[in-house]
Amino acid sequence: MAEQYSDLEKAINTMVSNFHSAAANNGPTLKSDEFKGLLSSQLPNLAKTSGSDAGMGEILQQMGVKEGEDISFKHFWNLIQTVATTQHGLLSHEKVSKCGCVLL
Amino acid sequence: MAEQYSDLEKAINTMVSNFHSAAANNGPTLKSDEFKGLLSSQLPNLAKTSGSDAGMGEILQQMGVKEGEDISFKHFWNLIQTVATTQHGLLSHEKVSKCGCVLL
Repeated sequence: MAEQYSDLEKAINTMVSNFHSAAANNGPTLKSDEFKGLLSSQLPNLAKTSGSDAGMGEILQQMGVKEGEDISFKHFWNLIQTVATTQHGLLSHEKVSKCGCVLL
Repeated sequence: MAEQYSDLEKAINTMVSNFHSAAANNGPTLKSDEFKGLLSSQLPNLAKTSGSDAGMGEILQQMGVKEGEDISFKHFWNLIQTVATTQHGLLSHEKVSKCGCVLL
C-alpha cells in the first residue's frame, strides 16, 4: 500500500495489531497469560501496579472479564478507554495553554 | 520526560492529543466544525464517505451525539472504537498467517 496514513489511523492500527499479535493463534481472544505479556510489554506502567495476582484480578474485573474467561478485543478496548479517558481528563483539567500531552 | 513509551502508549497519546488539539480553546468538547476538521485531516477515508451533510449526520448519530450538541471525548471514542473493531474483525476473520494489519 503506497497510501499515507494519518497519525490517528496509525494509532488505531497500532492498537489493533498489538492485540492481534499477542494472540498465539491469531485468534479473536487472548488467554490470560498472553494478556499479561501484552500488558507488561506495552503498558509497563500499568503492569507495575498490577504485578500482584490481586491487582491483575482487579484490572480484569474492570475490563468486564469474567472468571476463567478469555480476553476479547472489546475487553481490551475497555482498558484502553480507561487509560485514554484518564489522560484526556488530566489534560482538560489542567487547561494547559500548549498541549504537552504526556502519557502516564 | 526521558522515559521511553511503548507503541501502545504512544498510540493512546496520539488519540488523546489529536482530539485535544482540535479544540480551539483546549476545552473538553469540540464544536461541529472543529470535529469536521479533525475528521478530514485524521480520518480522510472516513471523511470521504461522510462528505455530505447527511453522511456527517449519520456519523454523529452513531457516535451518540444529539442534535446541536458538542462532541465529547467519549463520543469521539465511540467512533474510534467502531473503526478499531471493524479493523480487528477483518483481521480475525481473514485468519492471516502473518499480521498485515492494514488500516482501512
